[in-house]
Amino acid sequence: MNIAIVLYTLGSVLEITGGLLLLPALIALIYGESTLLVFVLTAAGSFAAGWLLHRRRPNNMTFYVKEGFVTTALSWLMISLVGCLPFYFSGAIPSFTNALFETISGFTTTGASILNEVEALPVSCLFWRSFSHWIGGMGVLVFLLAIIPISGGSQMNLMKAESPGPSVGKFVPKVMATARILYLIYFGMTLTELCFLILGGMPFLEALMITFGTAGTGGFGVRSSSIGGYSPYIQWVVAVFMLLFGVNFNFYYFILLKRARAAFKMEEVRAYLVMVAAACLMIFLNLHHQMQGMEGILRHSFFQVASLVTSTGYATVDFDQWPGFSKMVLILLMFVGACAGSTGGGLKVQRILLLFKSYLRQMQMFLHPRAVRRIKYDGKSVSDEMAASVQTYLTAFLLFFGVSLVLVSLEGKDPVTNFTAVLTTINNMGPGLNLVGPAKNFDCMSTLSKYVLMFDMLAGRLELYPLLLLFHPALWKETAQKQARLRRKNNDR
Amino acid sequence: MNIAIVLYTLGSVLEITGGLLLLPALIALIYGESTLLVFVLTAAGSFAAGWLLHRRRPNNMTFYVKEGFVTTALSWLMISLVGCLPFYFSGAIPSFTNALFETISGFTTTGASILNEVEALPVSCLFWRSFSHWIGGMGVLVFLLAIIPISGGSQMNLMKAESPGPSVGKFVPKVMATARILYLIYFGMTLTELCFLILGGMPFLEALMITFGTAGTGGFGVRSSSIGGYSPYIQWVVAVFMLLFGVNFNFYYFILLKRARAAFKMEEVRAYLVMVAAACLMIFLNLHHQMQGMEGILRHSFFQVASLVTSTGYATVDFDQWPGFSKMVLILLMFVGACAGSTGGGLKVQRILLLFKSYLRQMQMFLHPRAVRRIKYDGKSVSDEMAASVQTYLTAFLLFFGVSLVLVSLEGKDPVTNFTAVLTTINNMGPGLNLVGPAKNFDCMSTLSKYVLMFDMLAGRLELYPLLLLFHPALWKETAQKQARLRRKNNDR
Repeated sequence: MNIAIVLYTLGSVLEITGGLLLLPALIALIYGESTLLVFVLTAAGSFAAGWLLHRRRPNNMTFYVKEGFVTTALSWLMISLVGCLPFYFSGAIPSFTNALFETISGFTTTGASILNEVEALPVSCLFWRSFSHWIGGMGVLVFLLAIIPISGGSQMNLMKAESPGPSVGKFVPKVMATARILYLIYFGMTLTELCFLILGGMPFLEALMITFGTAGTGGFGVRSSSIGGYSPYIQWVVAVFMLLFGVNFNFYYFILLKRARAAFKMEEVRAYLVMVAAACLMIFLNLHHQMQGMEGILRHSFFQVASLVTSTGYATVDFDQWPGFSKMVLILLMFVGACAGSTGGGLKVQRILLLFKSYLRQMQMFLHPRAVRRIKYDGKSVSDEMAASVQTYLTAFLLFFGVSLVLVSLEGKDPVTNFTAVLTTINNMGPGLNLVGPAKNFDCMSTLSKYVLMFDMLAGRLELYPLLLLFHPALWKETAQKQARLRRKNNDR
Repeated sequence: MNIAIVLYTLGSVLEITGGLLLLPALIALIYGESTLLVFVLTAAGSFAAGWLLHRRRPNNMTFYVKEGFVTTALSWLMISLVGCLPFYFSGAIPSFTNALFETISGFTTTGASILNEVEALPVSCLFWRSFSHWIGGMGVLVFLLAIIPISGGSQMNLMKAESPGPSVGKFVPKVMATARILYLIYFGMTLTELCFLILGGMPFLEALMITFGTAGTGGFGVRSSSIGGYSPYIQWVVAVFMLLFGVNFNFYYFILLKRARAAFKMEEVRAYLVMVAAACLMIFLNLHHQMQGMEGILRHSFFQVASLVTSTGYATVDFDQWPGFSKMVLILLMFVGACAGSTGGGLKVQRILLLFKSYLRQMQMFLHPRAVRRIKYDGKSVSDEMAASVQTYLTAFLLFFGVSLVLVSLEGKDPVTNFTAVLTTINNMGPGLNLVGPAKNFDCMSTLSKYVLMFDMLAGRLELYPLLLLFHPALWKETAQKQARLRRKNNDR
């Protein structure tokens, strides 16, 4: 592995993180909060460390898959470690474990919190918490690729490692241009939601934070009641935007190019919308007998479905109190997740579609054993390798899920809490059920469980492989061997 | 599809079922029970119906995959429908749904019961219930293949459809000889366990029934306390034999051939034993603080692990009362299941191994994208198609699991009950947790849920595809088209 390029890129990431930390510092300045110093010092430290790493440009600027994965995994670990310092040193979150949990939950757009009372946090900390959702939603490396030209032509491996979904659609041949278009769409949609919320009478800063939480499909709120305390108009706006941020961004790119027909022909988007509509209908019918007022039931059904399918995790009601059938539909939606190429989590609709098509192909093979069949997706043939890799992802997901579950079970909580805690963190959702339900938080978990869940959040956001590769013994064995070889070579000279 | 051969084979199955029903009739005769008449009449009816179907030998005796699947699925539906009649007509189980549930649970070796009090059943019915486990364990079609010579050379497709695991190892080139060897091993091991139980002082008939439940990895007991009321010696014997019946029968074939080294080199058997040992250790350590007496804790840990990993479902204690960690380990064991080519259920150790190897290969591909790697299993290369088909099976399993879960959730029970009820039936385990825990039964479920769970039991025993293909619209569309074509041809003549 080319360690030099990994460190060089990490340097850039730390510099950017330093820059981003100035925004909450500004908020602290405006609100005259004592957290100003902490934010400024963290920003300065991060920038200095980044500058040190970034000083020397490596000779070989090629990112292979492994460098892409390792850089991504380390970048995310790094920004989480740096990002949690203001919470910890300002005393806003006195426990380091909790501060790290909250920060990882922010960057990974999970939105699982360890705070008992959100309102008690300084505004600058609240802002930083929500802002981390926005940064993590589209990804810090995609941001890096959008602003810093990295020559070498292999940056795609960096983008692939950070972007959700089995394949990354390059809109245009250049990675930098693609990254810029992505951030342009992201920025535009964020601004639109902000305007809608302000129109609904929400104060600017609160609207900004709620928008960050929606855009990144994160779910950190600024009130303990999440979105439950706002007007129906606000709830509808947030619900619709959650749904929109869960759509594959290729869709919006087609729209930008005025190719609406191509946009609406995307199989994934269609399946996503049909699934959401079906889930809403099922829950609506299930709640129908139990609640009053058509608009209310419809709003709560739609809001919770949009929130869980996109892995945002905002809530307007405590859905842990809903009947078993509705809860089961929501749990299954959590597994499926949003579209690939969106800011949402979960397995992604595209993967589910490809898995289902693999299943249908198997059935066809039983009927006609000699016929050769390729899976078609969006009108194109899918290679066998691609189909197999999606299935391997499912395998990796389940293996990882099982191991996490065993570790979290060690503290002896009930199965529903354990199961949904792991599910909600791997899928970057937010709340689970029972002890980690929407009306509760993750502070009740043991320290071991918290670290396991932090790992799950990171693994879930980066779609497992980058983080799993980082802890894969073969990678480090090979790297050590390569370094030893290089050293011997240098000695021989 | 060749309907003629399907009906012809179904005829044989019904004839055999008629013959098998004479055994409980004999028990009824010995014990002077009034159920004698019902058993004899059902046997006669089954035989007569079989004879009618079996009269005309079809011209084309070739089983393609689809004929193999459809025959297997219909055979199992048929024997369940016939097998439940004695329970229903004798009044032993007054509800038809419950009688069918109990019978399907028997044949599929699930062992999930709807009976509140097992002891109230007539002895002949108890016997038939346990005997169905033994029949279902190795399979009725494998039995058919062992005793009736079917020429044509394509009977392998029949055997494949009924035998558990991703691939069927033919011991010898002839299917008939393979089927006979399988039944020989099965019979020998059954006899051995029976002797051990009788040596422990158990009455003959009771020992026979417990042996049937162990051999088929079924789990129907003859007392409400399952195996909890017996002596530690009996519990150890049953535990060891459960474990043994969960081993791939290839292992025993190697032993018979005096190739012990080859037997112990089987990767699956090694992984299975390591997994069992690890699970026992974890549960032992977890229970250590809570219970008294080393032997007792060890016995209960080992018994429950052996019971759940082989999907038998016998219990010596109410493990629903165990701490969360132990329960989670047991649930994960339920997913894994026993070895392929055994009488046990679950996904099978072989599949898990192949899935894990697919995952490792994926990691290797990230490290060395250009290297071509094949998965090795038992020292041999596994084809990409085989690896992919195992992964597709996992997909099919999860899709099927999800749909069942939604349907069972409709009645509004708690998530743990729903989840474990579906899990335990698909994996042919027996008891679940909560309302369907080892100290409870399935009578509390709604009629809809019962039918869903019956379908799950059959689908699980036949490893999904035969039953799913039976309900696959394309099969029947094609068959209808073919029939129409044949009719037109005949009219033209």
